[in-house]
Amino acid sequence: MTKRIKPSRSFASDNNSGVHPSVLQAIAAANEGHVIAYGDDPYTEAAVQKFREHFGKLVDVYFVFGGTGANVLGLKAVTEPYHAVICAETAHINVDECGAPEKFTGCKLLAVPTKDGKITVDQVKPLLEGVGFEHHVQPRVISVSQATEMGTVYRARELKTLASFAHKHDMLLHVDGARIANAAAGLSVELGEITRDAGVDVLSFGGAKNGMIYGEAVVFFDQKLSKDFKYIRKQGTHLPSKMRFISAQFSALLADGLWRKNAEHANRMAKVLARELEKIPQIRITQEVQSNGVFAIVPRRYVTLLQKQYFFYVWNEATSEVRLMTSFDTTEADIGAFVSLVKKTVK
Amino acid sequence: MTKRIKPSRSFASDNNSGVHPSVLQAIAAANEGHVIAYGDDPYTEAAVQKFREHFGKLVDVYFVFGGTGANVLGLKAVTEPYHAVICAETAHINVDECGAPEKFTGCKLLAVPTKDGKITVDQVKPLLEGVGFEHHVQPRVISVSQATEMGTVYRARELKTLASFAHKHDMLLHVDGARIANAAAGLSVELGEITRDAGVDVLSFGGAKNGMIYGEAVVFFDQKLSKDFKYIRKQGTHLPSKMRFISAQFSALLADGLWRKNAEHANRMAKVLARELEKIPQIRITQEVQSNGVFAIVPRRYVTLLQKQYFFYVWNEATSEVRLMTSFDTTEADIGAFVSLVKKTVK
Amino acid sequence: MTKRIKPSRSFASDNNSGVHPSVLQAIAAANEGHVIAYGDDPYTEAAVQKFREHFGKLVDVYFVFGGTGANVLGLKAVTEPYHAVICAETAHINVDECGAPEKFTGCKLLAVPTKDGKITVDQVKPLLEGVGFEHHVQPRVISVSQATEMGTVYRARELKTLASFAHKHDMLLHVDGARIANAAAGLSVELGEITRDAGVDVLSFGGAKNGMIYGEAVVFFDQKLSKDFKYIRKQGTHLPSKMRFISAQFSALLADGLWRKNAEHANRMAKVLARELEKIPQIRITQEVQSNGVFAIVPRRYVTLLQKQYFFYVWNEATSEVRLMTSFDTTEADIGAFVSLVKKTVK
Amino acid sequence: MTKRIKPSRSFASDNNSGVHPSVLQAIAAANEGHVIAYGDDPYTEAAVQKFREHFGKLVDVYFVFGGTGANVLGLKAVTEPYHAVICAETAHINVDECGAPEKFTGCKLLAVPTKDGKITVDQVKPLLEGVGFEHHVQPRVISVSQATEMGTVYRARELKTLASFAHKHDMLLHVDGARIANAAAGLSVELGEITRDAGVDVLSFGGAKNGMIYGEAVVFFDQKLSKDFKYIRKQGTHLPSKMRFISAQFSALLADGLWRKNAEHANRMAKVLARELEKIPQIRITQEVQSNGVFAIVPRRYVTLLQKQYFFYVWNEATSEVRLMTSFDTTEADIGAFVSLVKKTVK
Repeated sequence: MTKRIKPSRSFASDNNSGVHPSVLQAIAAANEGHVIAYGDDPYTEAAVQKFREHFGKLVDVYFVFGGTGANVLGLKAVTEPYHAVICAETAHINVDECGAPEKFTGCKLLAVPTKDGKITVDQVKPLLEGVGFEHHVQPRVISVSQATEMGTVYRARELKTLASFAHKHDMLLHVDGARIANAAAGLSVELGEITRDAGVDVLSFGGAKNGMIYGEAVVFFDQKLSKDFKYIRKQGTHLPSKMRFISAQFSALLADGLWRKNAEHANRMAKVLARELEKIPQIRITQEVQSNGVFAIVPRRYVTLLQKQYFFYVWNEATSEVRLMTSFDTTEADIGAFVSLVKKTVK
Repeated sequence: MTKRIKPSRSFASDNNSGVHPSVLQAIAAANEGHVIAYGDDPYTEAAVQKFREHFGKLVDVYFVFGGTGANVLGLKAVTEPYHAVICAETAHINVDECGAPEKFTGCKLLAVPTKDGKITVDQVKPLLEGVGFEHHVQPRVISVSQATEMGTVYRARELKTLASFAHKHDMLLHVDGARIANAAAGLSVELGEITRDAGVDVLSFGGAKNGMIYGEAVVFFDQKLSKDFKYIRKQGTHLPSKMRFISAQFSALLADGLWRKNAEHANRMAKVLARELEKIPQIRITQEVQSNGVFAIVPRRYVTLLQKQYFFYVWNEATSEVRLMTSFDTTEADIGAFVSLVKKTVK
Repeated sequence: MTKRIKPSRSFASDNNSGVHPSVLQAIAAANEGHVIAYGDDPYTEAAVQKFREHFGKLVDVYFVFGGTGANVLGLKAVTEPYHAVICAETAHINVDECGAPEKFTGCKLLAVPTKDGKITVDQVKPLLEGVGFEHHVQPRVISVSQATEMGTVYRARELKTLASFAHKHDMLLHVDGARIANAAAGLSVELGEITRDAGVDVLSFGGAKNGMIYGEAVVFFDQKLSKDFKYIRKQGTHLPSKMRFISAQFSALLADGLWRKNAEHANRMAKVLARELEKIPQIRITQEVQSNGVFAIVPRRYVTLLQKQYFFYVWNEATSEVRLMTSFDTTEADIGAFVSLVKKTVK
Repeated sequence: MTKRIKPSRSFASDNNSGVHPSVLQAIAAANEGHVIAYGDDPYTEAAVQKFREHFGKLVDVYFVFGGTGANVLGLKAVTEPYHAVICAETAHINVDECGAPEKFTGCKLLAVPTKDGKITVDQVKPLLEGVGFEHHVQPRVISVSQATEMGTVYRARELKTLASFAHKHDMLLHVDGARIANAAAGLSVELGEITRDAGVDVLSFGGAKNGMIYGEAVVFFDQKLSKDFKYIRKQGTHLPSKMRFISAQFSALLADGLWRKNAEHANRMAKVLARELEKIPQIRITQEVQSNGVFAIVPRRYVTLLQKQYFFYVWNEATSEVRLMTSFDTTEADIGAFVSLVKKTVK
């Protein structure tokens, strides 16, 4: 366990956090008697209802075990293997899923270089040149991460522009929303505003990075797209038998605005962390802090020293840019301790 | 929710049960501070250690979200797409995984008809005729379920015979152990005796059917076979981010013999249920009760009446054979209530 | 080359034959100047026209390199990976394609045992029990071989019955027509009568077994089904660059009834061969000779002796049933020589 | 047939050409009697022998129908789905195979931008950062095209450098040799010098672009890599039944240096074409002519006019760069006619 480090809360990733007490309580409360497995139970019915309150009555919602599964299966539902998925070079589906999208969907990913993790219509356009030409994969989906892997967020109108363009070219807009809550909190909007209202077609709605133990949802905004998704989920090995325990977690997260409270807190902590780091002249913040991630260039020798006590990821080896994530349980004291160490280190 | 029914504990499936209190407690206890995600944490280290106590120091253990995932990824690790997997016609991988093994491994399943869910070397032999002939898929794995989907179990020497035959023909023995605990309890043996000592190569070790919320393990008895499994798991969308919570559950299950207590209880309840049903002349028990499943022919008109109050599966429509499963939380009172209803119904 | 044997024409398989002189001539004639690759050429236009004369104006026709490719890609065009393809246990797609259909389509094959290589609606019905249940693969295609691998043929009304049943249950009828010419010749019908008129949806139309060098066609009887087939063919590695040379062969085969002459000849030779073998008391013909294959039980010791001079396949090791195929170039002298040897051997 | 144009020989692609007379003759000569299908015949034995004369006694050679098949199956033989294949952005496998490599191998392609279609070790290095980290695909193969899609060629020592680097990092070197003959001719070397001697592991050896009708070969320089390739070829739908006719073509091509004569001629014609076009001030040659392709920037309005009479591909829409290919049958008269038209057009 060479990587285990003293501080009980680090900035390595928002999934290094535990589970929110209310979520744990919801699991315990759902642990009563028997219910039918695989989702035909009242807990799941209630959780789906909660999703419909946020995303509209017509959405179709399917719970799965994890985020990579949600992305891969959501994409599978709307593609054929000769299709291409357009995404940012930094997208989780492109770099952090060990080729799972290619393996399961057969599609090629067309990755667009970006400065801030966001893609624009102008970057997508040239990729459509081969449409109709059978030697080339056929672009079918634009996939964006919201918030992005760089901590930035798409505004509603940016998504609308992408969605309109996609639809005009017989494509769809997919959102990897592992941190959709942080995006909505960062933009001070409702979940529906940056999804349904913006023209999003398929959404991976994240739970684990915002206080749940496990469990993500694939949300379809057009039920024609989800027609056969129950088979895709099962064949995709993501039909949880004891579904009620995912459902109960989602109900807890979506009730009483817990999703927003958790996300807002994490976002605020990121802003505090960035503000403090900015004061240190040897460090340069590289991305606007719009959700719960802080990106900063920290000279290599300091990184080495800091990593002796804190585990975190170097995002870009070439520039020595590091990624620091906050989560629902990050405290100002955690930040204080880390910043103190940084200050001490750079002296 | 047309299928929701009054009784709080039914006999539909062992995964209709909830979670064992000790397991829930273990989850709560693991909810402290941050740990590194994806398994590089002390909880996972401890859980793997527990597996090694049961299965031997040299096993490689990987946790995944669910049982279909465990089967599919374990098989993927030891096959090429032009291989075949030999299994019983009743095998979960053959009928209850919506083609997930074929989709992910590319392999063909060669299914052998059985009376009791168990396959023998004599049934496997004719399937090897095409070995070396490129027009035919090449048998590479014999996969058995332990306990089987029919509630029967393989004795250690039966497994040894299959394993020897497999190894002699350059094949491997895979065990779908979604109910391996029930099998070991039914046979009154240690887990190692019907796996490692019997020559098993890969095992799906089940958690959810024996008191866990979610989580299964893929156990490799030869580390050469698992060399690249970490990539297969990640690409297979089954690398849990908050791994510690699966690990904590397994530690609870494997400590103090909880796995055996749960399984023995379920098995005993199945015997009680069968014994009571046997007394009813209109009902015929069709399989020896060796684990936690009871199979019985119940005349069609009674099935219809019973299903108004209890949800359970008709296993064979043609013969009106039903499947009744018990679980770690089944009580004698549950059985009493059900049997009373049956008696009342057949009158 | 232990398998090389003296006689210049054997009965091992119809693809052991060479190419018909008219076909070779057509290739030579197409070898003039440059034409656009990949099918956008006048030879291909003309060949497609020929297909439309036989199968109707509305068919969509795509040429591919070989028969396994034709089957696999045709099935891919009409399935999703969670679908099942129902076929006879003896089907080429089930036993002789090394799992290619499973690997490329992801589908499970549900194989039905048969006596004569033909399947009936009654055999298909029980396989539909799991329709709508997400744990099971969903039957989507009934695939039959015409002529079958046992040398038998489906009459038009048998196909109609299968097609009607399929369509009624939201399924399609696929025909592996590697020997469709032999079937049509055997039934004395036009190609359209046992395909379009019978309700067939997708057809693999064979060339190589009836006098061509290489090349098969995938014929779609409903253009909605072939909407994206050009991408499937290319991604499926079966888009021939010098397409004109496949097209020219098909034009030769379909012009002036060459396809029928070749097939009728092969069929007649099979009848002659069967008639002669029947006279030998030690040999028993096992299947009605309806196309160009003869199946016969020949005592094991004679098989061994005969194979010293003729290469042919033992179809069923257990019963010592052998398969003898005739082709467009088989002569009565070839049969005479073989039968003489058999007679000498059994004495 | 809007694309059909007057001139009998164009510059659209080397696969717009027909078949070399000697190759056609070889097919006719092989059309005698029956031989065993699928490659167990004397023609194939002889052709493999020819390959061994060129590439060494220890190579394993497998014939397949086409070039995309050769690439995809060769890559499949040496990869697992969680691997990555590193190639040039311009590589045929990356842009012109409709995602076939991803679909069949499951691998991700990591495409490197290039000026001239060639990749260097320096470009490969940064792609190895994620080695051993399970979230990332694992680089396993460097694939180069020889000659490249830009008409350039790798010198033997450039390949050696790539191969050494690959082997040092547990990777392999794959060569898409659809135009390997043109490369060898361009470099005035033997085929073995730029493959076996340079450390190449797997080669797609092209036939169709150098005078054959159809047929490519997958050549393995280490027989450990091809251990199970016969199953991969069959499952990959590329086992030709009448193999002898591919074999006969290869024997003709490899005998008496026909492969080199054809390639040298095509290369020489490309040089002539480039030299003539260079004289036209409105046109700029963009790539060194090292094989049989000429790349030139031709102002858009002239392209439009020229394409009324000649079909050819615009390689880069943005810069109006066109690709002109010569082939074994291109004549100086063909070039003269085309160049005259260009001159007339630009006036």
